[in-house]
Amino acid sequence: MKNRQWRLVRRPEGAFRPEDFLLSESPLEPLAEGQVRVALKYLSLDPTNRVWAREADSYLPSIGLGEVMRGIALGRVEETRHAAYATGDLVTGFLGWEDYSVIDGDALKPLRMDSRIPLSARFALFEHIGSPAYFGLTDIGRIKAGDHVVVTAAAGAVGSLAVQMARNLGAARVVGVAGSDEKCAWLRDALGADATVNYRKGGLRAALSAACPGGIDLFFDNVGGEGLEIALDLLNMHGRIVICGAIGGYEADGAQPGPRNLLNLVFKRARMEGFVCFDYVADPVAWARMEADITRWHLAGQLKYRVDEVDGLEAAPAAVNRLFDGSNRGKLVVRVSGDT
Amino acid sequence: MKNRQWRLVRRPEGAFRPEDFLLSESPLEPLAEGQVRVALKYLSLDPTNRVWAREADSYLPSIGLGEVMRGIALGRVEETRHAAYATGDLVTGFLGWEDYSVIDGDALKPLRMDSRIPLSARFALFEHIGSPAYFGLTDIGRIKAGDHVVVTAAAGAVGSLAVQMARNLGAARVVGVAGSDEKCAWLRDALGADATVNYRKGGLRAALSAACPGGIDLFFDNVGGEGLEIALDLLNMHGRIVICGAIGGYEADGAQPGPRNLLNLVFKRARMEGFVCFDYVADPVAWARMEADITRWHLAGQLKYRVDEVDGLEAAPAAVNRLFDGSNRGKLVVRVSGDT
Repeated sequence: MKNRQWRLVRRPEGAFRPEDFLLSESPLEPLAEGQVRVALKYLSLDPTNRVWAREADSYLPSIGLGEVMRGIALGRVEETRHAAYATGDLVTGFLGWEDYSVIDGDALKPLRMDSRIPLSARFALFEHIGSPAYFGLTDIGRIKAGDHVVVTAAAGAVGSLAVQMARNLGAARVVGVAGSDEKCAWLRDALGADATVNYRKGGLRAALSAACPGGIDLFFDNVGGEGLEIALDLLNMHGRIVICGAIGGYEADGAQPGPRNLLNLVFKRARMEGFVCFDYVADPVAWARMEADITRWHLAGQLKYRVDEVDGLEAAPAAVNRLFDGSNRGKLVVRVSGDT
Repeated sequence: MKNRQWRLVRRPEGAFRPEDFLLSESPLEPLAEGQVRVALKYLSLDPTNRVWAREADSYLPSIGLGEVMRGIALGRVEETRHAAYATGDLVTGFLGWEDYSVIDGDALKPLRMDSRIPLSARFALFEHIGSPAYFGLTDIGRIKAGDHVVVTAAAGAVGSLAVQMARNLGAARVVGVAGSDEKCAWLRDALGADATVNYRKGGLRAALSAACPGGIDLFFDNVGGEGLEIALDLLNMHGRIVICGAIGGYEADGAQPGPRNLLNLVFKRARMEGFVCFDYVADPVAWARMEADITRWHLAGQLKYRVDEVDGLEAAPAAVNRLFDGSNRGKLVVRVSGDT
C-alpha cells in the first residue's frame, strides 16, 4: 500500500501557488509504540492553513519546507499501537494532506457520531467550525439577550454558524458582512440575518453604519482590517470584539494595517479578545454542551450549513485558494476516501 | 466677587497653543436649586484634557468653543443649594479652569480626607490618578502573583503608581518605559522598577525585548502606537493589555497608527481592554478598598509620588503642554487657592 502526500515545498507569497506543493508517494512505514495510522475520509481546508504555511510560528509551529502539509481531517483508524484506539474507530485531529496519517494516539480526538448527521457534515457543524462560533459568542463574547451582533466573513463556514447561533442565543439583531450579493441573500433568506453588507461594493463604513442603527454590542470578527476599525467606531458601551480570525491579512503573512482608533476601547469600556477553539477540547463538559446545543439547533432547523465538497486528495492545493478568492460556498472539505 | 475663567476658544492642532484659550472675567451668578458653588483649591492638569478639547466626543462630550475649559479639580464648597453639601465641605469633580465652579451637587463627589496625607497630594495618590492605576491592574488586568508587567509612560502620574502597585500586588518583574534617563533612574532607584527603557533613545523593540526576557503577562498602556505593537509580539499566553490611555495619539486627535499584529490576540489567547476610572465611583465598596490600599501602601513607604505644582490659575494653559513634551515631573497640578 502506498501513501500519497502533499508536501509544502515553497513558502507561499500572497495566495498559495500550485508549485508551493509537491505530491510524493511513499510506502506505509511501520508504527511505533503509541502511534495510530488513520485512513483519511475528509480533509478540511481552512483559512488557518495559510497561517501555518508562513515562515513564522503561529498558535502552532510553522510547517517546515518539505514536510507534509498539515490539515485538520477525520478518518478511520486503520492500524493502532495505542491502547485508547481500536481499528475502525472514527477520529479527528491535526493530520496531513495525505491518504494515511501516522500520529501519536494522545493527539487524536475520538469522534462521537450521531446517526442523524452525515459524516460529511461533521466539519460543517462541529469541531473547529462549530466550536469557534459557539465559544466565540458565548465564552469570549459573553453574548446576552438583546445584543446587536455583527459577524464578518458571515457566509464562511464559521461565520454562517455564528450568524445563526447569535440569533438562537437571543441577539436582537444580527448583521452579516459577506463578499457577494448571492451570499448576502443566502444569509438573509436562509439563515435569518436581519441585515447584510456586501463589502465588495465599497462604502463599507456607510453601509455598516446603516445596517447597525443600534450600534454594535458584539463584533465577531474573522477578517480584521477596515471592518474592525469601523466596528470600533460603531461599538456600544461595554462592547465586545471577538477576534476569531483575520483572513484579510493571511495572504500578507499577517501584516495587516491596524485600527487607528483603539482608543475607542477606552471610551466604550470595551474588550477585544482572541481565542483558539482547540483549547476547549481540554474542557469536556463545555465541549459536550457545545455539541448538544449544535445538534439540537440543527435538528430543529435553526442551524443550517452548506458543504462545499471537493473530490480527491489531488484537488487540495487548487481548492484551498477558494477560501481566499471568495468562490467557496459553505464548509470546504476534500473527500479523500469519503464515507466508504 | 469676580470669577476668572479660561475658555477654550479654538481647537488645538497638535499641542495646545496659548491662543487656544482666553481668560475672561465675570461676576458670580446666583445659584439655582440643587447647585453648589465650589472655590477651587487645586486644578489637575491631565492628558485627557487634550482629548476633551478635540471636535469629536470622547467618553465625555467635547468642550464647545467659547465654553470654560473643563478640568478635574478639588475645592471647598463656598455656597450651596444642595441638601448633601454644606459650606466648607471638600469636594472634587469635573469642574472648570476657573476660580469658582458652579455645578449640580449630584455630580460632585465628597472628599474623605486623611490628615496624614496633604491636600496637595490628593490627586497624586487618589482620584483619577490612583484609581486607574489600581483598577487597571486589578479589575481589568487581573494581575496575579508572578506576573511580568510592563507600564508605559511609567514616570507619569498614573504610570508611576502602576509600577509600584504592580510590585505591591505581587508582580515578579516590573518594567517601566519612560522618556529620559533621569526618569528611568527615578523608576529604578526610588520606585523599585526591575528594569526601564528610555523610548527616546530609539531601538524600542530591541530594548523592550531585552528588558522582558520572560515576556509580558500584563501590559499597562498609557501611550499606544509602536510600544503597543511591540508588546503584542512579546505578550505571553493569556496576556492582558490594559488600555488606560494613548497619549502618543492625543495631539493627533486620536488618529494613531494601529498595531499590525492584532492576530497575536488569537495566537496568545489574549485580551485587550479599555476602561474609564470614573465608572468605579458607582461602586463605593471597590472605591473604599482602593483608597484603603493606597493609604496603607503610602504610609508603609511602598507608594511614592511626586507633585509638580504650578502656581496660579493664569499658568494653566502654558503648563498643560508639559504633559506632552515630557517636561513634567510627577502629578501636574495648578494651585488655584491652594490649602488656604
